[in-house]
Amino acid sequence: MISALALLSGRVHLRCCLRSFQSTPNLASSIISGAKTMSGRYGIIERGSVYTSDYKLYITGPNGPLSAFHDIPLHADSSSKEFNMIVEIPRWTNAKMEISKEQRLNPIVQDVKKGALRFVDNVFPFHGYIWNYGALPQTWEDPGHMDERTGAKGDNDPLDVCEIGSKVHPRGSVIRVKPLGLLGLIDEGETDWKILVIDAEDPLASQLNGLADIEAAMPGFLDATRRWFRVYKMPQGKPANEFAFNGEFRDRDFALGVIEETHKQWQAMMQGASGDAHGIARDNVSVVGSSSGIDQPAADAAVSAAPAAAPANDKPESRVPDSVGKWHFV
Amino acid sequence: MISALALLSGRVHLRCCLRSFQSTPNLASSIISGAKTMSGRYGIIERGSVYTSDYKLYITGPNGPLSAFHDIPLHADSSSKEFNMIVEIPRWTNAKMEISKEQRLNPIVQDVKKGALRFVDNVFPFHGYIWNYGALPQTWEDPGHMDERTGAKGDNDPLDVCEIGSKVHPRGSVIRVKPLGLLGLIDEGETDWKILVIDAEDPLASQLNGLADIEAAMPGFLDATRRWFRVYKMPQGKPANEFAFNGEFRDRDFALGVIEETHKQWQAMMQGASGDAHGIARDNVSVVGSSSGIDQPAADAAVSAAPAAAPANDKPESRVPDSVGKWHFV
Repeated sequence: MISALALLSGRVHLRCCLRSFQSTPNLASSIISGAKTMSGRYGIIERGSVYTSDYKLYITGPNGPLSAFHDIPLHADSSSKEFNMIVEIPRWTNAKMEISKEQRLNPIVQDVKKGALRFVDNVFPFHGYIWNYGALPQTWEDPGHMDERTGAKGDNDPLDVCEIGSKVHPRGSVIRVKPLGLLGLIDEGETDWKILVIDAEDPLASQLNGLADIEAAMPGFLDATRRWFRVYKMPQGKPANEFAFNGEFRDRDFALGVIEETHKQWQAMMQGASGDAHGIARDNVSVVGSSSGIDQPAADAAVSAAPAAAPANDKPESRVPDSVGKWHFV
Repeated sequence: MISALALLSGRVHLRCCLRSFQSTPNLASSIISGAKTMSGRYGIIERGSVYTSDYKLYITGPNGPLSAFHDIPLHADSSSKEFNMIVEIPRWTNAKMEISKEQRLNPIVQDVKKGALRFVDNVFPFHGYIWNYGALPQTWEDPGHMDERTGAKGDNDPLDVCEIGSKVHPRGSVIRVKPLGLLGLIDEGETDWKILVIDAEDPLASQLNGLADIEAAMPGFLDATRRWFRVYKMPQGKPANEFAFNGEFRDRDFALGVIEETHKQWQAMMQGASGDAHGIARDNVSVVGSSSGIDQPAADAAVSAAPAAAPANDKPESRVPDSVGKWHFV
């Protein structure tokens, strides 16, 4: 079944790349740089050049491009204990990549702050992000919802996840993960839950079922996680971040509850009138009962309208500022 | 003057790459992947594919390829307080690259252990090497010399250096550095000095003149450096490394003394009879009084005889084992 899907997926890649071919001189290279088949059911199509504001990474499913935010099922199994995660930022990298709420099909793009592409600073002893960082599809932290536990409203984003397994997953990977706990960040006054998860295929996954298991297998990692979130904006002159629950982690059941709550908030948002979209592009190819459904040709067209894939001789490293090599001591 | 040198250097690149062109279909890509002009007086020529046992990185000077070990002057200024360093391993990377003592012109190659290309493990909270790591040219730790301070013989290598500045320097860079102190590692029974240095062009360089300055500007970094060297082989089942002086760092003057001593040991080795070479390829294009001098055409020929440059569509990442993504807790 998977190989059949991969074949279908390959067809979509080719079609998209043929379009990009029209503006690039080398068909073979265009295919290589413009589309990749990831493991499992999903693939990616990269458009524009990475580390530019044109860059867009689309997720593809068995029938073609889809919305990373809306079309990938949250639940990866029938027990509701495993979930799909979209990797936005591979471990040990700095580029602040995230699912765009505003752009059609919600591609992964690089965040821009004050006109500059955003790279997160390295705070000693850490290098970049210390997990594979990403989001749970079909979840949303409603900015109109005051969370009683934190006293703060949602941050208008999909739920953030920190995957702690032993493999570095490439940007755009869709992986099956198992929640283990949660940290309640209050980021500039908004509730911003961080769900700790492990890749369900990690060699340690069957042994890790909660916070105590993490501490036993990876001593110091929970403290490092809290410290990372506390200080990561300080090199930019911002104050330390604050936490709900005095920075204590909450257990797996709490995390599972937050996942289901934010899934319901996402459902309500998708079913709401157009004025209730909070600026979110709700276009999707699969959500039942959605008023923003589009057909596959329209999704294909959205990808084709994006900037062409990077040329074969593109050197993304040349666009990474030297400051990304610096260690900050805060 | 520098641009004239760069031009000359470019000519050499082209000649070498034209040879590799004969076995690769794309001249432009071959030039791009096969030769680079680094900042300053030196450039590099890469042959073979990185992360294979064929890989060789040669340093080029104004007249063409030269020996990284023997032909780059140790002293970078007349005061003998600044030195040239060859970067073998950029910060936050894992591939154990080092100057080959045995191969002609001493290219940088990846170390092989038990038949496998060597990648250093990540020990939490570190990612790869935590400095730009490399060697001082024209130095050598004589394995026949018992060091009275450590009670252990030299490790038969050029002096190792850890560059702590804020820029990640690419493999093969030749940079001017300022010593700040030293750690005396005893690595599997051999004296293995680690000289702490800072890039003379780093914004902090003028403020850092010794160990206390490092601790003030980069709190915790000296401890992290010691811990890194103590534990870095433990994930492979080896015991913790030991140190001279109970692991205390020694100051800049001590480091300067060790540099001059090992420079003399190198000089003696270069002037010795052929039986005293300890397996070292002493071929060089510039060392006065050396019995192993070769002319530039012979040096060019040595590079041309190396495996062809990697093809344009080479994907080095695909050869990095997944284990390099793992964090070890020791």
